[in-house]
Amino acid sequence: MGNDEEIMKIVTSANIACGFHAGDPTTMRRAVKLALANDIAIGAHPSLPDLVGFGRRNIAISPEEAYDLVVYQIGALAGFVRAEGGILRHVKPHGALYNMAAADKGLAMSIAKAVYRIDPQLVLFGLSGSELVKAGDQIGLQVAHEVFADRTYQENGMLTSRQEADSLITDDQQAAKQVIRLVKEGKVRSVQGKDVELRADTICIHGDGAQALSLAQTIRQSLEAQGIRIQSIN
Amino acid sequence: MGNDEEIMKIVTSANIACGFHAGDPTTMRRAVKLALANDIAIGAHPSLPDLVGFGRRNIAISPEEAYDLVVYQIGALAGFVRAEGGILRHVKPHGALYNMAAADKGLAMSIAKAVYRIDPQLVLFGLSGSELVKAGDQIGLQVAHEVFADRTYQENGMLTSRQEADSLITDDQQAAKQVIRLVKEGKVRSVQGKDVELRADTICIHGDGAQALSLAQTIRQSLEAQGIRIQSIN
Amino acid sequence: MGNDEEIMKIVTSANIACGFHAGDPTTMRRAVKLALANDIAIGAHPSLPDLVGFGRRNIAISPEEAYDLVVYQIGALAGFVRAEGGILRHVKPHGALYNMAAADKGLAMSIAKAVYRIDPQLVLFGLSGSELVKAGDQIGLQVAHEVFADRTYQENGMLTSRQEADSLITDDQQAAKQVIRLVKEGKVRSVQGKDVELRADTICIHGDGAQALSLAQTIRQSLEAQGIRIQSIN
Amino acid sequence: MGNDEEIMKIVTSANIACGFHAGDPTTMRRAVKLALANDIAIGAHPSLPDLVGFGRRNIAISPEEAYDLVVYQIGALAGFVRAEGGILRHVKPHGALYNMAAADKGLAMSIAKAVYRIDPQLVLFGLSGSELVKAGDQIGLQVAHEVFADRTYQENGMLTSRQEADSLITDDQQAAKQVIRLVKEGKVRSVQGKDVELRADTICIHGDGAQALSLAQTIRQSLEAQGIRIQSIN
Repeated sequence: MGNDEEIMKIVTSANIACGFHAGDPTTMRRAVKLALANDIAIGAHPSLPDLVGFGRRNIAISPEEAYDLVVYQIGALAGFVRAEGGILRHVKPHGALYNMAAADKGLAMSIAKAVYRIDPQLVLFGLSGSELVKAGDQIGLQVAHEVFADRTYQENGMLTSRQEADSLITDDQQAAKQVIRLVKEGKVRSVQGKDVELRADTICIHGDGAQALSLAQTIRQSLEAQGIRIQSIN
Repeated sequence: MGNDEEIMKIVTSANIACGFHAGDPTTMRRAVKLALANDIAIGAHPSLPDLVGFGRRNIAISPEEAYDLVVYQIGALAGFVRAEGGILRHVKPHGALYNMAAADKGLAMSIAKAVYRIDPQLVLFGLSGSELVKAGDQIGLQVAHEVFADRTYQENGMLTSRQEADSLITDDQQAAKQVIRLVKEGKVRSVQGKDVELRADTICIHGDGAQALSLAQTIRQSLEAQGIRIQSIN
Repeated sequence: MGNDEEIMKIVTSANIACGFHAGDPTTMRRAVKLALANDIAIGAHPSLPDLVGFGRRNIAISPEEAYDLVVYQIGALAGFVRAEGGILRHVKPHGALYNMAAADKGLAMSIAKAVYRIDPQLVLFGLSGSELVKAGDQIGLQVAHEVFADRTYQENGMLTSRQEADSLITDDQQAAKQVIRLVKEGKVRSVQGKDVELRADTICIHGDGAQALSLAQTIRQSLEAQGIRIQSIN
Repeated sequence: MGNDEEIMKIVTSANIACGFHAGDPTTMRRAVKLALANDIAIGAHPSLPDLVGFGRRNIAISPEEAYDLVVYQIGALAGFVRAEGGILRHVKPHGALYNMAAADKGLAMSIAKAVYRIDPQLVLFGLSGSELVKAGDQIGLQVAHEVFADRTYQENGMLTSRQEADSLITDDQQAAKQVIRLVKEGKVRSVQGKDVELRADTICIHGDGAQALSLAQTIRQSLEAQGIRIQSIN
């Protein structure tokens, strides 16, 4: 929770882990209270059941299993939000589930259905241009196309896998530049050197890691210096 | 799930495990659908985190930890109920959590608060006359005093511990007699031989075990033979 | 544990789940005692960490993670075997780990290495002709090529996936015939209609399921009627 | 793992968590390798199954369940030690299991029996003067009476509960003084002001916490300044 208090002053939305890759009932309650105290939009961050692997290892689940996992985790977090008098605003799958749903139509539709059936007012966050946001669109959810500040892109618009050496952008200024271009031009330079067009509704910043706070500050300042106002999706 | 389909035709409420002592996202969805198909009132059945011990071993948790565990589990089940278009009606703690909350005021108040803050319309089920139903009363929840068909009682109104040889009533007719007397006279004969006064708003039948179905049938028939109508609490 | 007592009188080796897909410390101790009482060779049955999915869902683990999972689980079971004065004889990966290791050389070598480093006397059981038994051979372990009585085969020697309708052989006599031919001729008819050559050192029977006992009896009797003597590998 | 590398240069024994309160197969392997590289005696650190509560919450387990938990966890760690070519030297229960076994004879005897049956050469570490070391003595194990540098004592020789405000000694010099007196005089001043006699075979230093490294250094230097040589138990 260390940096969370500082980062929550900079961002406008927070995705809270629901116990399957991180988080437990007590840390969830605390994160919800912290977000509400900072007037930040709260999202559920459901994942594959993999605490040891932090939800980053693919698990071959069926669309039905994905639906059940997502309903369970959104429900659990929604309990804390309701108990604190807040409103759950959005859902963003985590890690391997996010990446699998970006490419797999059946999984994407199952997750979108889970979100819609729990509450059709929820916004579904997914990788910009992915199957997940398409499925959300199709089912009637508001969606947010997400782009990444500190990750590199492939020419097909997918993120470079974390297993690759060049997957992360560790320089804050370079990350800020990528974000500014995505927001203003809707384009990013892929690792293959070709530009990719991507819609940028929301920008992902990771809350963990030593650099998280300085990166968040740099990106916010760079956007504001360009006259871009940051606000939560709904 | 074997007998569940048959038993759901006899009872009027079902308590569904939420993944901490039994149940997983898929079995929870199925149980919710089955209950709704049979027009049965659905309750959350939160427990201590103890899959190996089926939630029957005391864990020394703080009232704050109890609050968090209960919010998480009610929320998770409520997700499935909402996704299926139903309404969550009540909450009944399971196993060791139920017994600990029957005797411990701080724990009882914490659980009642968790239920109230998630939804003040929920009914709190607790051991008849226990600290848990008192806490629910005090916080403004509707409560249901629960009595048991197949468990024996101590003269202080507590259940005989499952570790004791005489804790279970294995004869269906004897169990039915205990229920009839509880409902009509508000009394039960304790193992010490003394009568205990207990309010009986709801009767607990365990869904597992070979005898579950015949016991449920015998009790329902005995009650109806006495002109007693059975219905869900809310 | 129901049928375990009966089945242990028919088979010569038992693979015991180590807590990751099934089993817990208490059931492991009981299974070890039961096997020793019946003079049966005990094997560790390590799996991917997936209790909800019974270890049958692929998880994208690295070879290093596979090594660690396997060492942990073999070690845990070996503790019970040693405490009961027995000797751990073999290791057979379970479910998705077994199937992944049948096809993936890196994973297979990692598992073989884990087994060898814990105890080079252990026998490694793997799908007949698979990468797993090849890796065991290469590293210097005794291996056992395993064939299945109640599963159908593809023409490449792999098992038909459980997701396919024709993956299981439910007729005991047909299962026994497949076994006899495998043992006597080293051949099995694939679902594509073509014969496949397979070495048959050990025959897998699943201990769960209603039919487990009768299948085990039928196969044992059929083998003995052919004059084939059944004994444990080491 | 941060400070572990530095602390392992100062201490002579390490207790490695076995996955039930902390640790997972990969961190266990790494800790074992690190200990062997630093020529430190390795101990298993089994606990109650409570990852969320870090094994510090009492769970009402039976002596038989304690036996099974301890065998499982020692076995799992022993697997890694054997795979790395090392020898497991001792066992020290963690947290609530350690404290429960200090006071409960049945639990203490069950744990001692688990250790003995896995390997009678293992040394059993327990709170100085506790039921656990008595049980170890009685069953024929070598035992080590453990004292604490950074915890205060009650006049009955038990540790002050972590729930009390005065349970921790946060000043390194004060902790070092307590250790020196325990080692040289076999006495500690309790929070009630009365001296308690305690045998000090081994001194516990916690590896986590910001102060861990400086405390370990201060204690080692203080002991050596008194001409006391530190070595592992076996």
